[in-house]
Amino acid sequence: MSLRYPNGKMYTPNNMLAKETNKSKNISYSKRGMTLEDDINETNEYYLREGIAVIHKKPTPIQIVNVDYPSRSSAVIKEAYFKQPSTTDYNGVCCGKYIDFEAKETKSRTSFPLHNFHEHQITHMKKVVEQAGISFVILRFSLDEEIFLIESQHLFGYWDRMIAGGRKSIKKEEIEAVGHLISIGLNPRIDYIKTLKNIYHF
Amino acid sequence: MSLRYPNGKMYTPNNMLAKETNKSKNISYSKRGMTLEDDINETNEYYLREGIAVIHKKPTPIQIVNVDYPSRSSAVIKEAYFKQPSTTDYNGVCCGKYIDFEAKETKSRTSFPLHNFHEHQITHMKKVVEQAGISFVILRFSLDEEIFLIESQHLFGYWDRMIAGGRKSIKKEEIEAVGHLISIGLNPRIDYIKTLKNIYHF
Repeated sequence: MSLRYPNGKMYTPNNMLAKETNKSKNISYSKRGMTLEDDINETNEYYLREGIAVIHKKPTPIQIVNVDYPSRSSAVIKEAYFKQPSTTDYNGVCCGKYIDFEAKETKSRTSFPLHNFHEHQITHMKKVVEQAGISFVILRFSLDEEIFLIESQHLFGYWDRMIAGGRKSIKKEEIEAVGHLISIGLNPRIDYIKTLKNIYHF
Repeated sequence: MSLRYPNGKMYTPNNMLAKETNKSKNISYSKRGMTLEDDINETNEYYLREGIAVIHKKPTPIQIVNVDYPSRSSAVIKEAYFKQPSTTDYNGVCCGKYIDFEAKETKSRTSFPLHNFHEHQITHMKKVVEQAGISFVILRFSLDEEIFLIESQHLFGYWDRMIAGGRKSIKKEEIEAVGHLISIGLNPRIDYIKTLKNIYHF
């Protein structure tokens, strides 16, 4: 019998996970049916549990219009709207360093469309860099199951090129040239802290 | 004629603000009708504008149950519930340092009730401290208009005393002994970054 978490994900006992570690590079995303967000959340839970880093996804910003109070202790939101986030989705701390990033995926094989980012997110990233925070994006090419970490400083260049009338995406070759390929593991799934430690030596 | 922002707050031209800076310590909260959260949000906007720090309040976490899509481009949340936050409300970066805090107020004059905090928030603060982040609380005694910054390390002591069966609040004298009084200003209103720079020398 296979067990599932309330969110529908399959439960895998820890001793099975351990045995499978050596073939971790062959995990198929399509088979697992995991999104990039799922994988990053599980990675962050692993970091938290192991005392490696404290990184959380920010809640989705909501504009609440109408709330019902059927009883003193409960509140039901009856009307609300999604707001555009003014920052990136993930932030936190590792070894005293401020960590801030956004994660996006594409089905393109040849380039990463810049419309995945909003202008105020780029503005936020620039401000984080000014404050000497570590700012980056995690980009996943979902069909090829390749994940890259790109420091925001590079992203700003591609963004400015688009604003100046240039291409609206980052070429795969450009990402391969400046980005850091993260190999997919099981525990943690996307070990971006390891990549950051190599880049920033902390 | 007095102008007001959409949220009902009075609009004050910048040149008036500048003139009033020298009497900034006499501002009455009751007259302004501002909450601690309003003041901290305005302080954070000031820090962001002036390039001093990038600190944001996290959105309220919501469990969304039912969403209506009346058209392709719009979504109305029809049923949702408030979730208990698993972290503190505010975090961000200043001069490369990770900053993380919670802000609470009380109408008591003699002590600060610890039920203002949840256990998982204390757990979060402990994890931030383990990662060498700067973790603290801003406590406001609203009747006396006094605001203190308390480093989380001190809060843990009072929390553990409560868990061990001791008092369920922090005495005002204890707060005065270990806390840092923040004088209320106009621009920024609650200059906690200045206090942090004095404590941590960054």
